[in-house]
Amino acid sequence: MNYPNGMKKPTQLNQSSNPTNQSFSNRGMSLEEDINVTNQYYLDLDKAVIHKKPTPVQIVKVNYPRRSAAVITEAYFKQASTTDYNGLYRGKYVDFEAKETKNKTLFPLANIHDHQISHMENVVRHGGICFIVIRFTLHDETYYMKAEQLFKHWYDKLKNGKKSISYQVVKENSYLIPFSYQARVDYLAIIDKLYF
Amino acid sequence: MNYPNGMKKPTQLNQSSNPTNQSFSNRGMSLEEDINVTNQYYLDLDKAVIHKKPTPVQIVKVNYPRRSAAVITEAYFKQASTTDYNGLYRGKYVDFEAKETKNKTLFPLANIHDHQISHMENVVRHGGICFIVIRFTLHDETYYMKAEQLFKHWYDKLKNGKKSISYQVVKENSYLIPFSYQARVDYLAIIDKLYF
Repeated sequence: MNYPNGMKKPTQLNQSSNPTNQSFSNRGMSLEEDINVTNQYYLDLDKAVIHKKPTPVQIVKVNYPRRSAAVITEAYFKQASTTDYNGLYRGKYVDFEAKETKNKTLFPLANIHDHQISHMENVVRHGGICFIVIRFTLHDETYYMKAEQLFKHWYDKLKNGKKSISYQVVKENSYLIPFSYQARVDYLAIIDKLYF
Repeated sequence: MNYPNGMKKPTQLNQSSNPTNQSFSNRGMSLEEDINVTNQYYLDLDKAVIHKKPTPVQIVKVNYPRRSAAVITEAYFKQASTTDYNGLYRGKYVDFEAKETKNKTLFPLANIHDHQISHMENVVRHGGICFIVIRFTLHDETYYMKAEQLFKHWYDKLKNGKKSISYQVVKENSYLIPFSYQARVDYLAIIDKLYF
């Protein structure tokens, strides 16, 4: 796999994470939970201001019982028109999507939507830092793929019907995100190497 | 009121809006709707990538009827931990909150929350462009107040219990946002003058 600017292995990216960390790694927690913990850690350290957006919901019916909070009694999940995470790091706009797969050999493109790709294209064109976090749960590996790289695979899907990216290709065209206990998906380590 | 860099009146900010536009102005549409229309217009013009975040909802019960979409049958509104809008303009991170009031003489600080102010402080400290859009519905005027200015009033509330900002003070310490049919709350016009 690629490491930006001469990095040799993931543990070099984060001095506080030593190789034995791999043993208690991130098994058991979802990628979303891990990223939320990481973002909170960044916030606590005053390193970055990055949040998950709320799940988009179409609210249809709301009850207002006396003396208590309004209850939503009918609502539906809506498709997201943007990515799940965005914010601010070292003065830069940061925007990303995160997906995990239990597939060992490939990452399916099915759960990324057209309008998410359009949004990511907008972000890149306007000078933001944009990427997708891909976790292969069974390999216990989490990758940072630049949006520009994702676009290539997306266009390949549109042109040639290729509906997935093989694990091997993700490995070769992405950056392994280092894990540490508090920064469980330490994607800023990759951004530091790529952009600063 | 202040106009950045020698602006004389709001219509100067946007050449396409002529004074007669004031007549069909923004009466009848909520501030949120106006901002959504504006953001879509910016997006269509490829001027900026700014979106409203979904309303935060705590989902408690979901039904999965056969052959149809999942129905959320119990959920509650959650307090937002950040602001409602953020995105990217000319390479810069932009973040803001929007509030309207039917009060003629003052803007109450009651519907801004502590953690929203903390979030705005984070954004300013990390180099983002941060502000609040304040609409006085009955005056049919919409103002851009820099977050730094809002903080002063907020600290005044904490120290001296001052729970509102008078209309006059908003006028004097904010920028009137120009209105045009498509850019109904043309806040980028203010950002252009203040930051570029």
